[in-house]
Amino acid sequence: MKTADPSELKHFAGREAVALEDAMQQDLDTGLAGCDPLLAEVLKYALFGGGKRIRPLLFILSARVCGVSGTDVYTPAAAFEYLHVATLIHDDVIDNAGERRGRASVGRRYGTAAAILAGDWLHARSMHLVGQLAGPEGLEVFCRSTAGMVDGEFLQLRHVADCEITEEQYFAIIHRKTALLIASTCEMGAIYAGGSAKQREALASYGARLGEAFQVIDDLLDYQGITAATGKRTGNDFCEGKLTLPLILALARADAAKRESITAIIAGERQDPDHLIIVTRFIEQHNGFGLARATAEAMIDEAIAALSIFEGEDAGEHLRMLRGLAGYVLARNR
Amino acid sequence: MKTADPSELKHFAGREAVALEDAMQQDLDTGLAGCDPLLAEVLKYALFGGGKRIRPLLFILSARVCGVSGTDVYTPAAAFEYLHVATLIHDDVIDNAGERRGRASVGRRYGTAAAILAGDWLHARSMHLVGQLAGPEGLEVFCRSTAGMVDGEFLQLRHVADCEITEEQYFAIIHRKTALLIASTCEMGAIYAGGSAKQREALASYGARLGEAFQVIDDLLDYQGITAATGKRTGNDFCEGKLTLPLILALARADAAKRESITAIIAGERQDPDHLIIVTRFIEQHNGFGLARATAEAMIDEAIAALSIFEGEDAGEHLRMLRGLAGYVLARNR
Repeated sequence: MKTADPSELKHFAGREAVALEDAMQQDLDTGLAGCDPLLAEVLKYALFGGGKRIRPLLFILSARVCGVSGTDVYTPAAAFEYLHVATLIHDDVIDNAGERRGRASVGRRYGTAAAILAGDWLHARSMHLVGQLAGPEGLEVFCRSTAGMVDGEFLQLRHVADCEITEEQYFAIIHRKTALLIASTCEMGAIYAGGSAKQREALASYGARLGEAFQVIDDLLDYQGITAATGKRTGNDFCEGKLTLPLILALARADAAKRESITAIIAGERQDPDHLIIVTRFIEQHNGFGLARATAEAMIDEAIAALSIFEGEDAGEHLRMLRGLAGYVLARNR
Repeated sequence: MKTADPSELKHFAGREAVALEDAMQQDLDTGLAGCDPLLAEVLKYALFGGGKRIRPLLFILSARVCGVSGTDVYTPAAAFEYLHVATLIHDDVIDNAGERRGRASVGRRYGTAAAILAGDWLHARSMHLVGQLAGPEGLEVFCRSTAGMVDGEFLQLRHVADCEITEEQYFAIIHRKTALLIASTCEMGAIYAGGSAKQREALASYGARLGEAFQVIDDLLDYQGITAATGKRTGNDFCEGKLTLPLILALARADAAKRESITAIIAGERQDPDHLIIVTRFIEQHNGFGLARATAEAMIDEAIAALSIFEGEDAGEHLRMLRGLAGYVLARNR
């Protein structure tokens, strides 16, 4: 079978997460030696709160399909989890979010100062690991995608409550804020492994499509997810004025009168739960959810196609896992 | 003359600041190519608001006394200004500070989201520059001091309104939050220049003492500064419950009854301006300001002594400037 099925993937990812978390623990013990105990507590609270560890897994699998074996791979992999968690902590401060993964956010539990500082610490530590372990080339890719992430957030701020936003602009935002780092994660697996330019390119392209699909599904779940599974309030994006793909596609398909009434709602009181219901129905009536899902599916097909250069190489299990992960992105409900 | 006098230093620093700012502009043009214009605007607002550029100047001078000539030095020097400004932006978010250098803080002007993100961008860019230009060894020193800075802030949080704080604990805080990065800045100048272990050590030691003295004077200015010069409200530290050297030294010299009454004020309503006046008088009566200044002076003597290994080498002008900078730290009023 060319693709790992969900239970195989889950088993594999679980095993890798254990090895990764060991490496994270060891690295924190080194990095935090002599540091304030509260800093250690905050970092451990933030890092060991049930993350899915998808980014480090992508780095590990990318390195593996390029021929890396052994256990040294887990420490550089931790850098991607650090950076991801740093971003989540800062995002929660920005959004004033009280919850993350069903428990208090770092900012709510330890205060804004601790949250911003802990994010900065993780940021610095991730750069340190990347610089040490993936060399200057790896560091450059990493820093570029970090800067790109910030740029994507700015682009998103610019388009708050903007009903004129196009599909193209939406993709420019999610490419920068999500896909670029995932693409870099995969590419850096290849760099770490000393892979060829072709391998780097293939993995970067797989990661970019995967990341975009991941964000499209995330944006779908924001409307359609079950809070008990996602740990997030439904309709958050709408409340914050973030127009995502389902709504953009629906607006593009609506008649002028309908579009005008929805535009007025978006410009108005977005916190009103009735307005969320109206907008959700509007998206359903114009097949926005179905079209968005189809877009994500097409991207996942592209992601899998990019991996074809690894066919026939000695990358069997790990290639199947990368394909399985692509399927998981579509199937996930949290 | 072995030490640059204030007007020579001012002239030299001004000329170097122009070259540095050119390098920053060029680097931003590269790093921001294709980015959101608002991100560029926020960064330029944050970076070109009249900073003293002391950290890059220290890097430049340290590299010069180790034999570097030419203009390539300005781009890596920018990394230190970026990191410093990133820290200021995040600090202002943490402290909810509306003003910085006599104008609106980044957070006040562009919002918290933009401020946190711009800080993250500068953080990533500084690591990028250091990784590219000072190599893995430079990056390690840089990341270690960044992490140390966060650690120092945590240590400070732990001691908010803590009247039992010792002089030793105060120095542990300021060493981490201020001096470590300044020490690294100087050490990295030597690393960049390919200096000897002895040169690295001497410059790190100069930077550490200079940084500590800098912070002691900063803490003095917080009580004694003229708001029109510093751009900061007097008594900020006291209001936030940060016990700094003048107050710590005064408390150590007061009798039990006096200490108890001051302790009660610190635990109580610190926003009351009358309480600030009482505490300031208390410090004066116990010579806290004089003793703190004497401590800073002793540190500056040590900083200058650490430079003695450069005596007689071909480092004349730059060595005099490093000495002049040490004097400036004591003389500055903003």
